[in-house]
Amino acid sequence: MTDPTGRPKIPRAADDDYSADAAAARRAFVREQTGVDLHHVGQHSFDPSPTLPGNVEHFTGVAQIPIGLAGPVLVNGEHAQGEFYVPMATTEGTLVASYNRGMKLLRESGGVTVTVVEDHMQRAPSFLFPSAREAKTFVAWLDDHLDEIRERAESTTSTGKLVEVERYQASRFVYTRFNYTTGDAAGQNMTGKATWAACEWIKAQRPCGMTEYILESQLATDKKHSQINTLRTRGKRVIAEATIPDAKLREVMNVSSAQVYRARQISMLGGNMSGVANNGAHSANGLTAMFIATGQDVANIAESHAALVYAELRDNGDYYYSITIPSLIIATYGGGTGLPTQRECLELMGCVGRDKVRKLAEIMGAVVVCGELSLGAAIVADEWVSSHDAYGRNR
Amino acid sequence: MTDPTGRPKIPRAADDDYSADAAAARRAFVREQTGVDLHHVGQHSFDPSPTLPGNVEHFTGVAQIPIGLAGPVLVNGEHAQGEFYVPMATTEGTLVASYNRGMKLLRESGGVTVTVVEDHMQRAPSFLFPSAREAKTFVAWLDDHLDEIRERAESTTSTGKLVEVERYQASRFVYTRFNYTTGDAAGQNMTGKATWAACEWIKAQRPCGMTEYILESQLATDKKHSQINTLRTRGKRVIAEATIPDAKLREVMNVSSAQVYRARQISMLGGNMSGVANNGAHSANGLTAMFIATGQDVANIAESHAALVYAELRDNGDYYYSITIPSLIIATYGGGTGLPTQRECLELMGCVGRDKVRKLAEIMGAVVVCGELSLGAAIVADEWVSSHDAYGRNR
Amino acid sequence: MTDPTGRPKIPRAADDDYSADAAAARRAFVREQTGVDLHHVGQHSFDPSPTLPGNVEHFTGVAQIPIGLAGPVLVNGEHAQGEFYVPMATTEGTLVASYNRGMKLLRESGGVTVTVVEDHMQRAPSFLFPSAREAKTFVAWLDDHLDEIRERAESTTSTGKLVEVERYQASRFVYTRFNYTTGDAAGQNMTGKATWAACEWIKAQRPCGMTEYILESQLATDKKHSQINTLRTRGKRVIAEATIPDAKLREVMNVSSAQVYRARQISMLGGNMSGVANNGAHSANGLTAMFIATGQDVANIAESHAALVYAELRDNGDYYYSITIPSLIIATYGGGTGLPTQRECLELMGCVGRDKVRKLAEIMGAVVVCGELSLGAAIVADEWVSSHDAYGRNR
Amino acid sequence: MTDPTGRPKIPRAADDDYSADAAAARRAFVREQTGVDLHHVGQHSFDPSPTLPGNVEHFTGVAQIPIGLAGPVLVNGEHAQGEFYVPMATTEGTLVASYNRGMKLLRESGGVTVTVVEDHMQRAPSFLFPSAREAKTFVAWLDDHLDEIRERAESTTSTGKLVEVERYQASRFVYTRFNYTTGDAAGQNMTGKATWAACEWIKAQRPCGMTEYILESQLATDKKHSQINTLRTRGKRVIAEATIPDAKLREVMNVSSAQVYRARQISMLGGNMSGVANNGAHSANGLTAMFIATGQDVANIAESHAALVYAELRDNGDYYYSITIPSLIIATYGGGTGLPTQRECLELMGCVGRDKVRKLAEIMGAVVVCGELSLGAAIVADEWVSSHDAYGRNR
Repeated sequence: MTDPTGRPKIPRAADDDYSADAAAARRAFVREQTGVDLHHVGQHSFDPSPTLPGNVEHFTGVAQIPIGLAGPVLVNGEHAQGEFYVPMATTEGTLVASYNRGMKLLRESGGVTVTVVEDHMQRAPSFLFPSAREAKTFVAWLDDHLDEIRERAESTTSTGKLVEVERYQASRFVYTRFNYTTGDAAGQNMTGKATWAACEWIKAQRPCGMTEYILESQLATDKKHSQINTLRTRGKRVIAEATIPDAKLREVMNVSSAQVYRARQISMLGGNMSGVANNGAHSANGLTAMFIATGQDVANIAESHAALVYAELRDNGDYYYSITIPSLIIATYGGGTGLPTQRECLELMGCVGRDKVRKLAEIMGAVVVCGELSLGAAIVADEWVSSHDAYGRNR
Repeated sequence: MTDPTGRPKIPRAADDDYSADAAAARRAFVREQTGVDLHHVGQHSFDPSPTLPGNVEHFTGVAQIPIGLAGPVLVNGEHAQGEFYVPMATTEGTLVASYNRGMKLLRESGGVTVTVVEDHMQRAPSFLFPSAREAKTFVAWLDDHLDEIRERAESTTSTGKLVEVERYQASRFVYTRFNYTTGDAAGQNMTGKATWAACEWIKAQRPCGMTEYILESQLATDKKHSQINTLRTRGKRVIAEATIPDAKLREVMNVSSAQVYRARQISMLGGNMSGVANNGAHSANGLTAMFIATGQDVANIAESHAALVYAELRDNGDYYYSITIPSLIIATYGGGTGLPTQRECLELMGCVGRDKVRKLAEIMGAVVVCGELSLGAAIVADEWVSSHDAYGRNR
Repeated sequence: MTDPTGRPKIPRAADDDYSADAAAARRAFVREQTGVDLHHVGQHSFDPSPTLPGNVEHFTGVAQIPIGLAGPVLVNGEHAQGEFYVPMATTEGTLVASYNRGMKLLRESGGVTVTVVEDHMQRAPSFLFPSAREAKTFVAWLDDHLDEIRERAESTTSTGKLVEVERYQASRFVYTRFNYTTGDAAGQNMTGKATWAACEWIKAQRPCGMTEYILESQLATDKKHSQINTLRTRGKRVIAEATIPDAKLREVMNVSSAQVYRARQISMLGGNMSGVANNGAHSANGLTAMFIATGQDVANIAESHAALVYAELRDNGDYYYSITIPSLIIATYGGGTGLPTQRECLELMGCVGRDKVRKLAEIMGAVVVCGELSLGAAIVADEWVSSHDAYGRNR
Repeated sequence: MTDPTGRPKIPRAADDDYSADAAAARRAFVREQTGVDLHHVGQHSFDPSPTLPGNVEHFTGVAQIPIGLAGPVLVNGEHAQGEFYVPMATTEGTLVASYNRGMKLLRESGGVTVTVVEDHMQRAPSFLFPSAREAKTFVAWLDDHLDEIRERAESTTSTGKLVEVERYQASRFVYTRFNYTTGDAAGQNMTGKATWAACEWIKAQRPCGMTEYILESQLATDKKHSQINTLRTRGKRVIAEATIPDAKLREVMNVSSAQVYRARQISMLGGNMSGVANNGAHSANGLTAMFIATGQDVANIAESHAALVYAELRDNGDYYYSITIPSLIIATYGGGTGLPTQRECLELMGCVGRDKVRKLAEIMGAVVVCGELSLGAAIVADEWVSSHDAYGRNR
């Protein structure tokens, strides 16, 4: 109730605002303004000046997020084949232990088969017309000029390739999705710039009475879950599958495959009522921990937490489990992936260097399966509350 | 393609597995197994032994996430009233600069009015019956035994209070949502334990032929977006509002209120088609950066990124903008909020101590509005791509 | 391309516009204006003057929709217990035959257990406030004045009872759902009038700075499917269940329970991707045919077609199948239920007279199950296309 | 409670089960079994024997649904240009009057511009593989064999053309949508048969380890609303637009454009919360009445009631209103369109003969706009309840 007003602007350094000195000056400013000593925030192990440009503004220090090591997880991918130790950055007790338990189960069950089935990042401009009549004509115009559009888009990037322009018509607008492959980068900026160049060229042609475009109009839903991304993919579409013998579930998890399967069915009905974005358990937990550890854009958990689980109880008691992650948005290049701790975590999984992003996607897909089975079993085995009592903070 | 198999288990310390020594041993193990030196990961400024139990298992080091300082943001809340500097932990260039720009706009426009209108955390057990006939009877039984149920639930916690038990019937099941207030904690573990105790008592009564319950069945959708949480709230329901003069938008953002308003309308239509969880721009960006900085459970971005934006273009040119965040899941106590850098960031905003969680919610709501207007204006003003060129990594 | 313009207005009779003469005059007008002789449209078996006021304006004749008779369907309800012949008005070949086949299967399997678990119709006004702050206060005000609100609402109707006022807050508005029981009527008009009276009274109190209300604001979604109605019910929430022996499925449907079950699982995954309002097969077919035959407001198929299917493959091979219809909007009084053919069809099922609407709901629920199993089996048994070849029009 | 069991089967005629005699025999059977005389049901004006095969089984009589005449509606389409009288079959008072009022408004405002922007009907088989790895390969196989697949599909139909095969991968399955143009028919049976032929050929090739397919797996969602159909169209995608002067709204509707516009905005926010399939008012009402009158498959209201409304309040006070109907499923050939009263109603609008289905779609789109504006204005003008008092049955 006594929070002050009329506070001064945050100081910026005239020369190098990314320097340790500039950060220290801001911490001093904070102390002066609020009385708070950012002691721990000020402890970082790297020189910010050469490191941080492009990653943050008004650099003031670092958040230190504990990393727990889990694994190994056994992955049968097209790019990742073998066992991997997994760095998970989290502050939530039980999480690492639970994923680790799942990794043991899956390791002893032959591992997780993972396939990246689609891969594209998009920007989604809308084009404005006098009426739907002209808009309809523009759709055909787009088909006729795709080569020129691609040329303009790709002129802005060395790695991005324009694969397809999806079209969705409503009112007097044509909504599009420009789909690109983006190499090892996540590609949001790359596709933004490329699409902008394409749109400027289109606008200059004044096709079909087009008067204006908007570079992003909620058909790609950056940083937001959507049904269209579940259907049409944003980032990587990753499918992870495993078959677990009933005996293994009983031995490692204290549940039978039939019990786990039935609980899933009842939960799926609940999810149909609630309109849930993910009919599985908690893939966001494992993905967030790996996103933080490896320098991903963590806000993309909004999209990447969506999932489609499908399971089968086989006649021999085996439990076939699959999870489809339709919008896994990750990078092994660009963004935070080159920062010091982040790069070490990528190296630990052999995911530094060219053409490693699908390998990382496969490892993530496998990790997610481990966490799903571990939590799913804990709920059924009535061990969920007791394990949080053992590992959690709210004791 | 040469990833190894048959790898050994991660070492654990016999005495104190949270110690710096145990972490060092694991880093040595990683070096031996993978050849990777976790040099930066090993640099932390605190003693893990007394700090980390309850937050992580297999502690191995820390992720260092750059923090940029933004603000001040002017908040007109019921708990936060005045100007606040805001710590944002991110690796995405432009983010802090963009939010900072929005804070300037809103500061000069009178600030952001924020109201926490609902506040409850839930656990959602389902109860199983022979048929829908008995399930129907159980709904009445619940009404008759609410006091006893509350008593069992609340016996497990000093702060949690059971407010309501929602009921949703489908097939031969009754799906419920046990809604609690949870003080300054986010409350997922607390409500899990309390609901488990209540369910065990219910089960012991064998009401209406109930044979079994499942402690969580996709009606609370922990770590997952859902329509039910948008409707019925999970965590805090926060509404942030502001009225911005047209002249201010032109001066600070190079756009008119009419332009921004119209682009929103077209994007909302796009969002109706795509089935988006948030008809605004990118609240996940600001929330994630603050979640990481302040020790929140970042995976809850899955739920917390949902939003309902409503804007008006007033006759005098003013732009009324509001965003409703139906599931802001945060804490100022428990989880990662007590860790060293995280606590410093909470202190910086005056959010340490009792009864501070709604103050934090109000500051977050205000920050979100600033980011929405900044990005919204940048897209319309055609400055989005150029600003990422200036601040982003993919140059 | 030669369609005329400047056409005259449709004639109305000065005295009794519902009379056979007025209708004949309009048919003559049509002949004159378009050259089309509405010969068959003009053939109706009842005197319109005393019959149609309140059902239609500008009466011109009738549509004749063929009725096929199916059944008997064996129902184990709380109100309908026994076997019923079912009138289905449709122009789609195969439909009656397919439902009839399902009725045979279920009759031989012990019938369908049906339970109406909830029953309320709603009108959903929103209330407008200066900001969310006042809106929050209004929610408490509503609690304090519920008795007075109920009194005003119920003063307008002899049968409607106000059960609950749900509240959903967003921006500076409070959205509500006024839930009523409405006896044997569907109740849309009754609840509209009652809620209007309540709102006028509320407005007169000027609570919390309220300036205005809107009588309907998309939270009841009349004539439109919505997730909220799937969750919270609109009309009757009907759950129909049956257990079918594997041998019966093989005998009557040429499929095994395991085959049908597996196809359901794969379709449910498809439905999660497509965002479908009903994870079953085609309940709209049976419901529409019965709605037309019995004088329901057929446009409510928009809401009533939603469904939640849950099935189990039991260890002994039995197939447990349930469908939850969350928004079955029907009447046995009012609307078209008193018209001549419609009333005969209701009589045929013993659904004329007081307190018959739940009986009708139960019969409809049972019919739906029969159709679901018949189509589901036909797809799996590869008889779907061939049966349409046999019964369909597009031969 | 005294409903009988052990009832006999419905009689069928050995020779011609569509004959008037067979129907009379069934009515006699009903009288004998239930005591109910289906007097009015038995009154039909046509000879059923040559008329009904392909439309119904167990023909027993007809439902007589009152038809009200509305209009003329002024349509500016590509196929319908001019004024049309519109037959609406309904039992709901006020409906015809309300649409008629809207037609007057739009007639005086220059009419409704309607554009059919897409047109395809689909069947959606899924293909089953050992794992996602083979499924991924199959997607490429489909591309390579599209010509052969098209050949098989089109061999079964003289009018259907296979336009595209959409692919959506999840788990070990490939879900597809086979999109066809179907001429003047709605095409559900035609596309079912064609897709079945294509699938049988595909299965015979045993591509990529495919073991099985399911002809329909919830990606086309026949008779069910879905987000995918809102995005990708099912049937006709129809966009209807109009610009109404403020003065006209005031004169005809007693409201200003600003009032109507603002109420829409508030309702749209409500709809975002409720998860509604249609952010407009009640298009299901007009469409259902026209579907029944013109012999459409009325159960398709489940899909066809979805809509996307977009409106603008122009600087001069004009109200631009548009509605996009993404899944209008209609025919002018096949199904019930050839039955006596149905055909007369199609003739009345000039929609009998080849290539008339888009003309009908345009008229329907225009009618929908009229109804939307009429109801929207009535709610705002506080005339909704009073008009139902005047015209409705529940007086």
